[in-house]
Amino acid sequence: MKKKRKGKKMLLTRIPPIPIPHLKFSPPSDRTPTLIRRRKLGAISSCLPEPEERKVHETPPVQPRARTPSHQLARWSRARALRSGRRLDRTKLTANRIPSPPSAPNPTDEGYSTDEDDGTTNGEATGPLEGKAIYMVSDGTGWTAEHSVNAALGQFEHCLIDRACSVNTHLFSGVEDTERLMEIIKQAAREGALLLYTLVDPDMAEAAKHACRLWGVPSTDILGPTTEAIAAHLGVAPSGIPRGAPGRKAPLSEEYFKRIEAIDFTIKQDDGAQPQNLSRATIVLVGVSRTGKTPLSIYLAQKGYKVANVPIVMGVDLPKKLFDIDQEKVFALTINPVVLQTIRKARAKALGFGSDVRSNYSEMDHVREELEFANKIFAQNPVWPVIEVTGKAIEETAAVVVRIYHDRKKKYFLPRISKRY
Amino acid sequence: MKKKRKGKKMLLTRIPPIPIPHLKFSPPSDRTPTLIRRRKLGAISSCLPEPEERKVHETPPVQPRARTPSHQLARWSRARALRSGRRLDRTKLTANRIPSPPSAPNPTDEGYSTDEDDGTTNGEATGPLEGKAIYMVSDGTGWTAEHSVNAALGQFEHCLIDRACSVNTHLFSGVEDTERLMEIIKQAAREGALLLYTLVDPDMAEAAKHACRLWGVPSTDILGPTTEAIAAHLGVAPSGIPRGAPGRKAPLSEEYFKRIEAIDFTIKQDDGAQPQNLSRATIVLVGVSRTGKTPLSIYLAQKGYKVANVPIVMGVDLPKKLFDIDQEKVFALTINPVVLQTIRKARAKALGFGSDVRSNYSEMDHVREELEFANKIFAQNPVWPVIEVTGKAIEETAAVVVRIYHDRKKKYFLPRISKRY
Repeated sequence: MKKKRKGKKMLLTRIPPIPIPHLKFSPPSDRTPTLIRRRKLGAISSCLPEPEERKVHETPPVQPRARTPSHQLARWSRARALRSGRRLDRTKLTANRIPSPPSAPNPTDEGYSTDEDDGTTNGEATGPLEGKAIYMVSDGTGWTAEHSVNAALGQFEHCLIDRACSVNTHLFSGVEDTERLMEIIKQAAREGALLLYTLVDPDMAEAAKHACRLWGVPSTDILGPTTEAIAAHLGVAPSGIPRGAPGRKAPLSEEYFKRIEAIDFTIKQDDGAQPQNLSRATIVLVGVSRTGKTPLSIYLAQKGYKVANVPIVMGVDLPKKLFDIDQEKVFALTINPVVLQTIRKARAKALGFGSDVRSNYSEMDHVREELEFANKIFAQNPVWPVIEVTGKAIEETAAVVVRIYHDRKKKYFLPRISKRY
Repeated sequence: MKKKRKGKKMLLTRIPPIPIPHLKFSPPSDRTPTLIRRRKLGAISSCLPEPEERKVHETPPVQPRARTPSHQLARWSRARALRSGRRLDRTKLTANRIPSPPSAPNPTDEGYSTDEDDGTTNGEATGPLEGKAIYMVSDGTGWTAEHSVNAALGQFEHCLIDRACSVNTHLFSGVEDTERLMEIIKQAAREGALLLYTLVDPDMAEAAKHACRLWGVPSTDILGPTTEAIAAHLGVAPSGIPRGAPGRKAPLSEEYFKRIEAIDFTIKQDDGAQPQNLSRATIVLVGVSRTGKTPLSIYLAQKGYKVANVPIVMGVDLPKKLFDIDQEKVFALTINPVVLQTIRKARAKALGFGSDVRSNYSEMDHVREELEFANKIFAQNPVWPVIEVTGKAIEETAAVVVRIYHDRKKKYFLPRISKRY
């Protein structure tokens, strides 16, 4: 049976939410906490003395977006066209693009921070925002919403890359009560944002849907249809308890620990370390410097694979052990020499190489020679699949590696990656 | 304008797909490739000699699931109830659960591998399959489908953990042509599987939808509604080009390189290494051994944060540098002593600790003392948020850290994590 919200709240406060120091609207130079407020941020405990509690703001009145009915109609006609599978004429769409709301969000508006980006995180929206806003709301970690929106935005790269359109995403995670949810939806209405949500609590999902309809906020439930389909398939109702909520059972612990073990192993085996352990790896990657062995290893480790990577350096013999292990788990990475040179130049600059011994690291002749040296090794080891990484994101190369790995291991009639839950 | 499929196929074969050695249905002891077939596995090149090409199988005739109409009705009534937001009586559902198809899949069936799991990957379905099948089909990497299904399955933990229901997921990624798609859907019909797809090519998505309807396979488009909502919001049609396809533009390179840099940095800073670099970190984690600092660091690094982690060991002073850096980026991890002891015992066993000097590592008195030692340090540094990791998955702790980090940095009226695309 679904737990009642009241019961859930009690569970949520099993570990009492102790306040977190919180800066608010103070200029960036001022680092002294001025306002402290009590907020739920998961199960956090702090050694702070009991602070003064204060309600920081009043919910401002809703100001629905000023948008002419014709715009709204045009918008939903497009949405319907897309849903029905009809193809859209992109040039027409671009010409016909809905203009930004007449008044761009005011940088001094409460909803925005005016402090400068300190450059520590990339791609983060700062200062006054331009472009379309996408709100992502989750009563859990928010990672599914982020992952899905990121993947969906990949479908608009043609427009995003040349800045013909620009998007600001805003992730609101751990939204556990309707009050906060309503504040977010009101703000979405003010900003003319699209609201995409993963709310596993059916009351919250329903509340979001109704509020969005009421305040004219276009919205979509990201995970709902998938969860419903699985519920119908299994004949079991979903728990409705978000990830991280105390009512939720612990993650499948065996898999969890194996994953941590894989990460520990992979870090220790990075960059050719401890070749004696190569036999314990699930996947072994070989390639010259800057073919992305390390990030690929880490990505695969997160998926539970124990990965070792072995660098190919011209004139240096590969560890003998590499040829003693099961050759079917070795994957070779290759890359276009021009692209590799560009990456290496950037790398050399970052590391501050000058005219020292490693200066040939990014020289074209050296790059070509090293890749040829690697290709010769690959030719001598025909069992190793040679994977072209040029222009591929880590995720894409990882998909290829995992696909070959499972194809070889499982020999399915229809190649697949299977998992038991 | 959307590219025509023919043009796309040509692009896909720009790098000619060279065959991969492929074992098929040979006994596990037999490691010699017996059948080789030509398949598209992304842009792979191999140094193999040109192999013999052979069509491996004929598509068997479709055998739609034998299911009584009442079952089908009951199923969709439940689906409708779920969709309408009506609450389901779980006990009733469990009692009423649709039985597995009368004939369990035959282990000698072409669709299944009978070889034993070698234990290298966890949770992987092997041998004859029991439980419900979920097919995930993607024309890209398949990670969005995997992530979403994994998140959705989290809603059925109450049933999965005690094995009241069990699920086998099968990921078919890089499905780029309708022929292969149809084979998969036919197989899904045979297995009585649910089909969840992320097909960005509208023709493929349409074909999947129609075939599923025709062959009675329940199906849901995972990412379609999100992409459509964004398309309507931006007034721009999606490209319809899957990730990894050559027609797709390269990933946003600045962000891409920053992410790789973050991973490189994080690996180098693991376990208290190079404290002189702490000032360059975006986030610094402190905690005793086995509070999950390393996997958490790696998870955050994948999201573009440069993370350093510093272990707390009883009687060992923390590096002075830790107190010189911006204290707002330091996060303390704490854990329940009983849980920590269990984790450490497993760890000690895995590492083969006997009665040596580190034998007190997992002793309860030592565990408690070390946690108290850590808590004293945390009390002396009240700016550090103390995050309880007991029973939390890495993703959950990461969500808490990132939320606090962004709240402190941005001081938004409604706390959020913003990003510009």
